[in-house]
Amino acid sequence: MAASAGIVVTGTEVLTGRVADRNGPWLAEALRAQGVDVGSVVVVGDRPEDLRAALAFLAAGNDLVITTGGLGPTADDLTAAEVGAFQGRPSELDAELEQRIAAVVAALSARRGWDTEPESAAAGIAKQALVPAGATVLEPVGTAPGLVVPVADGRSGPPVLVLPGPPVELQGMWPAALAAEPVRRALAGATELRQRTLRLWRTPESELAATLRRVDDQLTGLEVTTCLRDGELEIVTRYEPDADDAYGRLVAAVTADFAGTLFSDGPTVDELVARALDERGWTVAVGESETGGLVTARLTEPAGASRRVLGGVAAYANSAKEQLLDVPPATLVDGGAVSPAVARALAEGARVRFGADVGIGVTGVAGPGGGTPEKPVGTVHLAVVGPDGALAYSDRLRGDRAAVRGRTGTLAVHLLRQLLLGGPPA
Amino acid sequence: MAASAGIVVTGTEVLTGRVADRNGPWLAEALRAQGVDVGSVVVVGDRPEDLRAALAFLAAGNDLVITTGGLGPTADDLTAAEVGAFQGRPSELDAELEQRIAAVVAALSARRGWDTEPESAAAGIAKQALVPAGATVLEPVGTAPGLVVPVADGRSGPPVLVLPGPPVELQGMWPAALAAEPVRRALAGATELRQRTLRLWRTPESELAATLRRVDDQLTGLEVTTCLRDGELEIVTRYEPDADDAYGRLVAAVTADFAGTLFSDGPTVDELVARALDERGWTVAVGESETGGLVTARLTEPAGASRRVLGGVAAYANSAKEQLLDVPPATLVDGGAVSPAVARALAEGARVRFGADVGIGVTGVAGPGGGTPEKPVGTVHLAVVGPDGALAYSDRLRGDRAAVRGRTGTLAVHLLRQLLLGGPPA
Repeated sequence: MAASAGIVVTGTEVLTGRVADRNGPWLAEALRAQGVDVGSVVVVGDRPEDLRAALAFLAAGNDLVITTGGLGPTADDLTAAEVGAFQGRPSELDAELEQRIAAVVAALSARRGWDTEPESAAAGIAKQALVPAGATVLEPVGTAPGLVVPVADGRSGPPVLVLPGPPVELQGMWPAALAAEPVRRALAGATELRQRTLRLWRTPESELAATLRRVDDQLTGLEVTTCLRDGELEIVTRYEPDADDAYGRLVAAVTADFAGTLFSDGPTVDELVARALDERGWTVAVGESETGGLVTARLTEPAGASRRVLGGVAAYANSAKEQLLDVPPATLVDGGAVSPAVARALAEGARVRFGADVGIGVTGVAGPGGGTPEKPVGTVHLAVVGPDGALAYSDRLRGDRAAVRGRTGTLAVHLLRQLLLGGPPA
Repeated sequence: MAASAGIVVTGTEVLTGRVADRNGPWLAEALRAQGVDVGSVVVVGDRPEDLRAALAFLAAGNDLVITTGGLGPTADDLTAAEVGAFQGRPSELDAELEQRIAAVVAALSARRGWDTEPESAAAGIAKQALVPAGATVLEPVGTAPGLVVPVADGRSGPPVLVLPGPPVELQGMWPAALAAEPVRRALAGATELRQRTLRLWRTPESELAATLRRVDDQLTGLEVTTCLRDGELEIVTRYEPDADDAYGRLVAAVTADFAGTLFSDGPTVDELVARALDERGWTVAVGESETGGLVTARLTEPAGASRRVLGGVAAYANSAKEQLLDVPPATLVDGGAVSPAVARALAEGARVRFGADVGIGVTGVAGPGGGTPEKPVGTVHLAVVGPDGALAYSDRLRGDRAAVRGRTGTLAVHLLRQLLLGGPPA
């Protein structure tokens, strides 16, 4: 690897988990696509000393340091000034930039109907127009400009690329950031870096470990990482092009040992299912109880979902299961609302009521309440009904309410995959 | 602040965003509750040199370093051995621990129907039973034990607490970790640290900045951070108990300046809405198009949701809007499926069909396709209908498909809050 970058994500709201960071992972992947390696992402709160420590840590071993966030108008937004100080370049007001930001804020205030006192608006704008001496300004996508701040003359160290926190602004500014001369120079040594993924369904990590140990001496040049999550075992491999043969040997070994559970050489199960539905021109509908809308929301996440997903009914109440999805009252009484028969009836009801080719039915106990000795928390029943047949699956899942709901969603998508594509059972 | 900790989150899958980290934020909050300050979280991939660099960075300025993840049976799980080496304590096989892990794996394999070769299972178990000399073992919650690894005799530095990656295992092990003698000693200086939150709806950050500047000299001892997200402006303040009066002055200033938009002194809008529904004994149902199940899924996230949420219909297809939610065909023709009238009809249909006290209706264009000059991507219409009246709201949102869907969900919950509690309009 001939070029590397370190990322600082700022914001106490990220550090404490009130906001999930989307920028670190996005940047790591965008840099990987440029052949730039990212070894670590440091998340810091809004304290200057923590930001300075993170900058020093990452500047020591990288060709470029990138910061995200902390460019707003409030006093806790201190990234630009701190980066300037760190690089030995005190900040100055850029009067032309100030005017451009003022124009953006005025347009935004008009659209939003804000009635900010001119004085306080001006103070915020002036703060956002402070630029470290000698820095390159990246035009704002929102109200905050980005910056490329080289180290002061006579000192050594990588440039720091300062990007705004809102993902839409950061991503909108990225092409200009990559094109900026100091960034191009810093990343000049980047070489092609490939990343490939294999996905197995329900293979224990220890079995894969045995395979990897067996072929270990044939995998020189590969950086292999594995991750088990919700029953899916992902094998992600990064390598430079000259290790292409080694990657072929890895694929051959995994295919030989796990032909029955290897379900993807790249796409996610959601992507495979969407493609398979589109290829057949099939539509799908959902009747779900335990997951409360989550399965439908997951199926409608990708762009273009409306051509393959007709909709779903989240039916907590038994009356809703009966009246909106035609679940027979006797079925609800016989085995209770959490039973394989109800999952099947939910799938059939959704299929008929929406007029879809495939119906998915989900019921279960997400917890933390509602469990019984016969049907403990984590009990789930799923069914998928298509034009040519049906599949059912039951399980008892571990984890808290959010984990049980999320895992049930993964099970539902895998059961749908099995109906559409065959392959390893859900 | 008299005790501080640094957190290392390991795993290439986290670094590259394939898995969202839940452990860093959870630990930061759990430590805060103990009065322990966390200045930064470092996310590293599965490369030993990156882990070592992160350990060195955090050991320099903290009383305790915590690692999460990298304790599995595969070769890329290297945390325990690397931490041992970093602390000057080479790892040795703990034969009794190996037997206990073997028993757990055997039980798990039986339950899951795994058919792992004994040899490869044994290799994985032996790897997980390697313990740095002199470390304290925390009993496994899953298959991986945790560790507390003090620095080698004669060297100085904080102990490293090694925790497993799966959140259910990490959280299950936390009480034992806090009780371990080396951890207690490291955190002995912890003092009480309060955290309070104020939430404003649709206040521009620049207005709040003006208020904070005005009272700045009265806020000594407070660490104030603000965060604007989806129209909500959060003010999170941390302080030691002797700054309680200063916090009172901050609350007074914000209340005086923003009485019309301050909607919470702590709880999230989702919590406020759940409480208000429970207090009245009201139920709610959702008819949603653009958000595809997301609004229902969000309302059913909290434990106990089934007593207040009867369900929802995600109706992408117009036929589903008509047949499941009684949206009049003429309404769909007149203004199109994305219109205030359809939002209102979806809300009324959901209310009637589920027999709920309150109905929520949502329609819009999430994008990236489907926009027109009259109804561009981001156009959303919402309605809430209750026993005593109805509210409507329309907007044009920025951002990509995921952002538009997510923000629409926030708008829906705020519109519901307004119906239930009055206060600032959505």
